[in-house]
This record gives sequence, C-alpha cells and structure tokens, in this order.
Amino acid sequence: MKLEDLEQGNKYKFTLSDESQEGKFVNLTKSTLFIKLESGYNIGIHKNKIKKIELIEKIKESKKKKMDVKPNNKLPKILILHTGGTIASKVDYSTGAVIAKFTPEELVELFPELTKIANIESKIISNMMSDDMNFSHYNIIGEEIQKAIKKDKDLKGIILTQGTDTLHYTSAALSFMLENLPIPVIVLGSQRSSDRPSSDAATNLLSSAYFISEAEKNNFHKVAICMHNKTDDPECQIISGVAARKNHSSRRDAFQSVNKPIIATINFEKEQIKFTDKKHKDKEDEEGKFSLKKFDEKIKIGLVKARPGFQTKELEIYKGYDGLILEGTGLGHFPITKFDENTKQDEENFKILKQLAQKMPVAMTVQTINGRVNMNVYSPGRKLQEIGILGHNLDMHPETAYIKLAWLVSNYKLEEVKELYGKNLRGEITERSQLNTYP
Amino acid sequence: MKLEDLEQGNKYKFTLSDESQEGKFVNLTKSTLFIKLESGYNIGIHKNKIKKIELIEKIKESKKKKMDVKPNNKLPKILILHTGGTIASKVDYSTGAVIAKFTPEELVELFPELTKIANIESKIISNMMSDDMNFSHYNIIGEEIQKAIKKDKDLKGIILTQGTDTLHYTSAALSFMLENLPIPVIVLGSQRSSDRPSSDAATNLLSSAYFISEAEKNNFHKVAICMHNKTDDPECQIISGVAARKNHSSRRDAFQSVNKPIIATINFEKEQIKFTDKKHKDKEDEEGKFSLKKFDEKIKIGLVKARPGFQTKELEIYKGYDGLILEGTGLGHFPITKFDENTKQDEENFKILKQLAQKMPVAMTVQTINGRVNMNVYSPGRKLQEIGILGHNLDMHPETAYIKLAWLVSNYKLEEVKELYGKNLRGEITERSQLNTYP
Repeated sequence: MKLEDLEQGNKYKFTLSDESQEGKFVNLTKSTLFIKLESGYNIGIHKNKIKKIELIEKIKESKKKKMDVKPNNKLPKILILHTGGTIASKVDYSTGAVIAKFTPEELVELFPELTKIANIESKIISNMMSDDMNFSHYNIIGEEIQKAIKKDKDLKGIILTQGTDTLHYTSAALSFMLENLPIPVIVLGSQRSSDRPSSDAATNLLSSAYFISEAEKNNFHKVAICMHNKTDDPECQIISGVAARKNHSSRRDAFQSVNKPIIATINFEKEQIKFTDKKHKDKEDEEGKFSLKKFDEKIKIGLVKARPGFQTKELEIYKGYDGLILEGTGLGHFPITKFDENTKQDEENFKILKQLAQKMPVAMTVQTINGRVNMNVYSPGRKLQEIGILGHNLDMHPETAYIKLAWLVSNYKLEEVKELYGKNLRGEITERSQLNTYP
Repeated sequence: MKLEDLEQGNKYKFTLSDESQEGKFVNLTKSTLFIKLESGYNIGIHKNKIKKIELIEKIKESKKKKMDVKPNNKLPKILILHTGGTIASKVDYSTGAVIAKFTPEELVELFPELTKIANIESKIISNMMSDDMNFSHYNIIGEEIQKAIKKDKDLKGIILTQGTDTLHYTSAALSFMLENLPIPVIVLGSQRSSDRPSSDAATNLLSSAYFISEAEKNNFHKVAICMHNKTDDPECQIISGVAARKNHSSRRDAFQSVNKPIIATINFEKEQIKFTDKKHKDKEDEEGKFSLKKFDEKIKIGLVKARPGFQTKELEIYKGYDGLILEGTGLGHFPITKFDENTKQDEENFKILKQLAQKMPVAMTVQTINGRVNMNVYSPGRKLQEIGILGHNLDMHPETAYIKLAWLVSNYKLEEVKELYGKNLRGEITERSQLNTYP
C-alpha cells in the first residue's frame, strides 16, 4: 500500500527499517507521516523510513458521517484557522483523523452551539506542537489571515487555535504584524483535552465566536486571546494580544493580562459581554490601510536573564545577533557593578553590554514579569541607560518585548527600531509621565 | 587630606584624574570609596583615581548623637545582619554615613518600637546592590550566621536585610546552606526607601522581629522572607525561603509564595500572627546537627528560556558548565521536534541537550512560574525524560531550581545530585503522587 492511499482514521501497521509502528493515520506533510498510537499520543515518522504499510482496521462508517451545515444568512461569518494543539482533540482521541480534517462540519459536530452564533469556515494550517512554533509560522499564519480578509469582505472575524504553550508569543506576533486590522483575530487554545469533562475547549471557542459576533458594534478589531477567566466558572476573558501571558502550567485560567486591564469578560451561556477596558476603542490606527508586515525568518534575538552567578560568556554569544532582551532583576538591573574582588564578572558584563548596545538594540525588561522598568532609581540602572540600553519606563512583559523587538528588527532600520521600541504601537505600553523617582 | 582621615557624614570634594566629585563620605572598601551625592545617590570611586581630598562641610553634631540602648533581660535577643539595600536609607539620605555604621543604637533611633520587641545586635556584612550578589556572598552570609549561632546560645533569631532585587535567590540559597537550622533566619528588604511616607521598611523589620520573638513557641526555625502582604495595609507575610519570588518590580507586596501556601501573616500593630500553613512544624530534619554547606564559588550553572526563534548555539555554550536549568514552555517543553523544513534548529537542540544531560544535571522548569512540570503528557516531554532531563513532576519555580542545583552541584557527586534534585529537602517540592495524565 502506498502513502497516497492512506485514509484518515484507518488503522495501519507501518514497517520501518528497524522497527514497526501501529496506529491511525492522522496526516502527511512533505517529509513526515503522523499517526495516533493506541495510547492516544501522536508520533511523527519520516517518510523515507517506511518500508511497508498494511491496513489493520477500517474506520467505522458512523464516525465518517458528517453533520449538514446550512449557512444562516442572518449570522456573521467566522473563519477558524487551526495550527494544532488540544482544541479539537475529542475527535483526535476517537478516530485519530479528524484533527487533520477539521472541516466546518466536524467542528459543528463537536460544538453544535456554533451554528447558533455564526457561519463557520475553517482551515488547517499545520498540525504542530506550539513549542516548535517559530517566526516562519507567524508569517504563514499572517498570510492566511491577510488572504482571508482580502478575499471575503463579509468576514466578521478570525479565530486562530493552537497549543497553549506559546499562545501569547503568537498573539503578540500577530498584533504587531497585522497593521490596521479591520476585524478581530481571536487566538485561543485549550488547557485540557476536549474529551475530558474538565475541558475548556468548548467554552473558549464558543466565547470567542460570540465575542466576534458582537465585536463590530463594539468597534473591536484587534488581536486578542480568549481563555478562561476563572478556573471554576464558564466565563472567559479577552486579553490584549500584547499583554497576555501564560502564568500557570496547567490551570484553565492560566492566561492573565500583565500590567494592563483585561479588555472584556464573556459569559457565553448568559450571552453577556462586559467591556472592562474602554481603551480598545482608541482609534490608534483606524485610518490606515490594512497591511501585513512579516518577520524576517533569519533574525536572531537573544533573551537572557540576570541572576547570581551570571557568567559574562553568556552575553558574548549574542555578538552576531540582531537584538537582545535582558530580563533584569528588580526595576531592571543587571550585575554590572564590581563591589568587591570576587565579582570581576560584573565589570566584564558591563563592557560586553556596551559593545552589544553599539551594534544592535539591547532592551531591559523585568524578570518580576509584573511592573515597570525604571532605570533611574539606582546607579546601575543609570549606567545602563548611559550605554544605550533601551526599555526605561516601559511596562511590556519580557515575551512581548522579545516579539516586538524581533518584529521591529525585521521591518525597520536600527535607528527606527530604537525609537519605535519605546513607542506604544499596539497597546503594549501604558503611557505615563516620565518616572524619575521611585514609583 | 588622606583617605584614612575621612569621617562618615562629612562632605568632601574629591579631585580625580579627569573630573571632580562632591559628596558625603559613606564608606571605604579595599579598592573603592563610596560617597553620597547631593542628589541622594551613592557612587563608587576607585581609590587610585583620587588625587586630592578637601573638606567642604562637617556633619552636624546633633546627627551624631546616639540613642542609649539598655538591654531588657525579658526580651529575646535578635541579630540583624545588613548587606545593603534601602532598608536603612533614612539615615543614608540624611547624613550619607549611617548606613555604613548601622549600629544597634542607630537602628533603634530609626525604629524605636524595636526596643519593645527584642534586644538588638547588628552587624554590617557589606554595602552592596543586591543585583551584584553572588554565590561567594551567600557563603559570607552563611558563615556569619553559623558563627553567631555557635557563639550565642541565647540568640532567638537572625534578620538579614538586603536589597530586594535578589532577595528570593538569597533566601533559597540560605535555606539549602543552613542544614538543621536551630533558629529562624528572616530575610527582608524594603521596596520603598525608609524616608518616604510609603516606606515598608519599618513594617517589614518590626514584623520580622515580632515573628522571631514568637517563633520558638511555634516551633519555627527555618529561613523565610518577611515582606508586605498587601500593598495597602500593615500586614506582612512569612513566605518559605524556597517558595518566595519577587513578582512585581515596585509594589510593596511584590513578594509572593509560588505553588506553596504562605506560612503566616503578621499584624504587628495588633500583635497577631496567624499560621496559615501548619506544615512548618514538620520535623523534617530536626534531629540532625546544625551545619553549613557552602557553595562552590567557581561553579557555573546555566539558565535558558525556551521561546520561538530559539537558537541552538545558546545551548552550546553550556558545555563547560556544571549544570543547566531550562525554562520550558507550558508543562515543561523545549523546541526539539522538527515538524517542517523551517525548524531544523529543533533537532539540533535535542542533540545538544542529550549531550549536556550526559555530562551534567540538566533540569526542566516552567517559564509560567506557577504550576508543576509534567513531561508525561506530550511526546516532546517524554523524549526529554528519555535523554535524562530532570524535573518531571516538580513544582519549584525556576529561581529556586537554579539555586538548588547550584548548591547540590557544590556539595554532591553527579549521581547524588540527580537523585537529590527530585527530593524534597527544604519544603521546595510539594509531594504528590506521580502525574501520568494531564493535571
């Protein structure tokens, strides 16, 4: 049997050069075959390694049956883009195949309430772990969003689903890439597989769709994350794409808004949306033309965390990079002040930072995650500003700062990057009078 | 005038090779002179650079006057060790000198309520920014604590004050270093200078002293942090030294307990202590002999954060290190699975991690800060476990994990380090049945 003849959901035995694997066919990329094992886990097999394929069991016909979805002209049109993750893993667990199809019919079968909210279109962009996502994937997603918006003037919003690991990096990336976005793009995932009673998949997805259906009248057309508000109730929250952060490894309410108010809460069951932050209506760039400014896929941005025992050589490797984010201690400090004979590294750190800051944008953030950088309070901070370290008085958390710098470096010249890094482009900076004293 | 003749608090003009500086003399180390500028900030001047010294203004005599402190035999004896930071900067701001003296008399002058709680002894260990603290400083502090405990059987507790930037690294370091500690060691700092109305210095210090005075009857003799509980009330909280983390750059309640309940709250004004976690009474090592296990000052432990755009070369530099902490995404993942042609770095990351894990302890933590590592849920996590990455099922936050690994590597052989890293030594791990499924 040939690779081209594999049918999704059917169970096969794959004989490889050195072993064999049994599982349900999920999908096929340029180089890799994905199957779902009996354990429920997916594995990837390099195509070249497959010597023989045998059919073991055909998928039951009932599982193939599709719900008929007729468009309702009164409802808004929403496009769901899928990149992988647990959001549709109910189907995933049962047939091992549907995750790769993810048609509107299958989505509606999983989440029938969708038909009451919107006419759904859907597309699978990739089937990957979000921990492997990269600047190149942001470009692919950005292109899909641009294409969809340009193609269909009636589209009211886009939902992007992916694994939650790097959801907030993606939301920040899209926030910067999509300039003058005319419709909302809601990014979401699921902390628990959708075949578990505790799953948040349905609530997150339905809340997003409901929010999009109400977005136009609320003049909301930005990138945001929609995930659980509290762990024990059906509420979701809309968090700005540039303020969201995954602050817990497993809780359903892992995503929080850092240094900024959440934009809105949604109780889908009660059909309630409460806007808690009116600033989303700021017409910061509404007049401009919608455009996509992509990442340079080859750029290298460092991210380094200050700590006791920090070694200078950890800064040296960034000499060939295009930019560097420092995660300082406290208000934004780095070990650069030699106070005794034991810590000669500090002086070396200062020298290297000075060299780096002459060649590329180097910006300070705080490893406390919450709070603002203030490099005016203590002398090390003032020394860092003197050598050109950016970031003073900004309240972007380190991951947003990292994505912003990568995007700026991809699209602007060094002097512009340095200027724009400190400017509020997408709501990532809460503006405030210059801080000269201890906050 | 010679350097030896400088008097603290007096104002001098220092002529250097290329400029001159005016300020109040603060203190003198082996190589550096510290002065306080008119602006209130301290600067350090290398001794060799000073060409000429002129007296500008003598400190007012009234400022030199000391309060007389008579010991009250009914009160417990507490030793305050000072390493720098804003805790005593009221004096610092007014005379530029007292911070370097920090005698019991001066402390009592600043915080007169201390005399009602305890008999205070004090010692200055250093006068440094906490962002410059290092393993060598932990050893010095540890030695001072050991010396004080051995010297004075009546000592009821020790308070260590330092800058807040790395306070939680210090508390974790002391927690591991001081085995079978017989009395409490309370680590604290101040988020606002003590000459400001909003200062938390007095509340933190007095609450600590009060907590120590009540610690014996509550059988508490561990390392803990005592800082503000909420930003707007006089309550402090006692957080385990291995669970504390600075989670805000400037708020008074910046320190929080991560993944563990706080130990107690203290309302000093009402003389109330509420123990919220009874587990502090666990006699985990009460039978053993008090000992100090120091850091190897030469060890190098890496700390690296997974993210989109991560470059393999950032792992390669750790080949000569003694250990490595990974800050993974989500439940503890790292980009190691190549899903398409664009992300070849992932496979390289996996190769290098495998090499590193054969040579040294490499442990996973979560960059979400909160939550537990679970490398059983997804295939990349299982692959990481297969190559020997430690950390599965542990709930230490990254900074505690970093300090613990550094301390273990300083004191144990590789196989012991690998075993002890996963064992609960000081309350840093909440034990729980092995997680095999999604939490």
